[in-house]
Amino acid sequence: MTVIRVGIVGYGNLGRGVEHAISQNSDMELVAVFTRRDPATVKIASNAKVCLIDEAKEYKDDIDVMILCGGSATDLPDQSPYFAQWFNIVDSYDTHAKIPQFFDAVDAVAQKSEKIGIISVGWDPGLFSLNRLIGEAVLPVGSTYTFWGDGLSQGHSDAVRRIKGVKYAAQYTLPIKDAVERVRNGENPELTTREKHARECWVVLEQGADAAKIEQEIVTMPNYFDEYDTTVHFISEEDFKSNHTGMPHGGFVIRSGESGANDKQIFEFSLKLESNPNFTSSVIVAYARAAYRLNKAGDKGAKTVFDIPFGLLSPKSAAQLRKELL
Amino acid sequence: MTVIRVGIVGYGNLGRGVEHAISQNSDMELVAVFTRRDPATVKIASNAKVCLIDEAKEYKDDIDVMILCGGSATDLPDQSPYFAQWFNIVDSYDTHAKIPQFFDAVDAVAQKSEKIGIISVGWDPGLFSLNRLIGEAVLPVGSTYTFWGDGLSQGHSDAVRRIKGVKYAAQYTLPIKDAVERVRNGENPELTTREKHARECWVVLEQGADAAKIEQEIVTMPNYFDEYDTTVHFISEEDFKSNHTGMPHGGFVIRSGESGANDKQIFEFSLKLESNPNFTSSVIVAYARAAYRLNKAGDKGAKTVFDIPFGLLSPKSAAQLRKELL
Repeated sequence: MTVIRVGIVGYGNLGRGVEHAISQNSDMELVAVFTRRDPATVKIASNAKVCLIDEAKEYKDDIDVMILCGGSATDLPDQSPYFAQWFNIVDSYDTHAKIPQFFDAVDAVAQKSEKIGIISVGWDPGLFSLNRLIGEAVLPVGSTYTFWGDGLSQGHSDAVRRIKGVKYAAQYTLPIKDAVERVRNGENPELTTREKHARECWVVLEQGADAAKIEQEIVTMPNYFDEYDTTVHFISEEDFKSNHTGMPHGGFVIRSGESGANDKQIFEFSLKLESNPNFTSSVIVAYARAAYRLNKAGDKGAKTVFDIPFGLLSPKSAAQLRKELL
Repeated sequence: MTVIRVGIVGYGNLGRGVEHAISQNSDMELVAVFTRRDPATVKIASNAKVCLIDEAKEYKDDIDVMILCGGSATDLPDQSPYFAQWFNIVDSYDTHAKIPQFFDAVDAVAQKSEKIGIISVGWDPGLFSLNRLIGEAVLPVGSTYTFWGDGLSQGHSDAVRRIKGVKYAAQYTLPIKDAVERVRNGENPELTTREKHARECWVVLEQGADAAKIEQEIVTMPNYFDEYDTTVHFISEEDFKSNHTGMPHGGFVIRSGESGANDKQIFEFSLKLESNPNFTSSVIVAYARAAYRLNKAGDKGAKTVFDIPFGLLSPKSAAQLRKELL
């Protein structure tokens, strides 16, 4: 069996998840983790090397696919085009609105270097996007709904944490059950933001903080909370540490359509994840296999999940897949 | 916009569904329906021609994709290789155990004719197969479960109808709710055939038939019913005609795995279909678009859903898909 040699750039939640996912795939091997920190201070779970990010290009003949585990705001816009100069790359760029220009930036480099760059891999963008696409393609007359949650939102938790008097905070996005049921029943409702999702905050206060004032500040916060029904719970630090440090997430993509004379057809994809970053990592690792194979077959340039046949994601041969899974 | 010119071979439930699905896709046009019956006796819904099946090859320059709507038992094993001599084809061959040899037979012809043959398209095989594949690829440590139903099983309904004294019969396959819940909860249970699905029969008797004897004959029928818990209901002909002539179906593919340290991750795909044949038809039509595009790009040979990037299924351009759906 060919072993695919992988590198990781960035060792946060996602990087650790990728390292674990590689250990679940016997056709993959982690060569090195690249970090901006002093490598001596970064302890990783496996026996791979830890190197400075600037040394990465020296590994161009030793790494088949570089997995970029940085953030979409500031890391990936620089890192993805940079690493595509020497490596096949996979990233999880998730700023939906900027995907077209990000794709073009990676494509320009990867066409020249003759490498593959699969961008925006994970579950949304990623598996949810795939389901939005195929749902629409197989039921062209209908409506598509995406619901997220129950799940921890990092961005919203951060926004609550920035309020003066808040010590810890976790914010969960909750799909509204009644809305989900109406969609599943094929009612094709028009739903406002408030009708689709609710928000729930679990907050630990600094000593002496004014709970009523903080609650008001949360529920009226523009962009983050004002368009939603938000519930705020104040809890103890112990409670927070026992119950709100996980990173669960998930959601649903539902396509509700009709394919004949008034026959309702409901298509649904859902995820219920105890660890959002570990699942994203695991999806990325499957797409790293595809990046390697596409490049071996002579392909190059930027790709998204829409361009990749599922057969390339599995370690099994095409004949084995037809026999076992079709 | 390029219009894809489509032909249909066979005008039963599936053929009628394909005709309807084509009308929902503005980049497709139905050129002709080919039948073994006297064309004068076949009334179709659209304005396309109706021709004898033997005339089909005369249309080789007028039809981009031929959609084969015959049955898997006797029609498709002959028809798919036959039509692949002149046309890109899509079929819904669903005899799971014989897919490898069927693939090879279509591939041999399509390689020579330089056409595309996408086999085994629909929802199972088809969308369910895709979800079994990607579920396993993104959660390599875990278990996959496929449940079917609630849905009408044509083969089992026929088996009941063959019993002497039965006038009409409909057989529904029902996933057992408790089993589905255990899987959704990540318990990874080992389930016997009886624990996964139940069977329910709605039967209209001929006058004077012995209900108790027929019930016994149904529930003990080898291969069809003996491994399941089966409930038999005797109803009037009016009741049957009002409530049991639809063809609903559906089901679930669930992958339950863990991607990190004991974090349960649940992946589920489900369909709830009021018309099984109309949905299958609609999936086939989306893959006809892919067959056309692959062949235009110079590709040839037999393919399955595992070989087709989702982007080729949509009438939208790759750039539009990235912008709107990623």
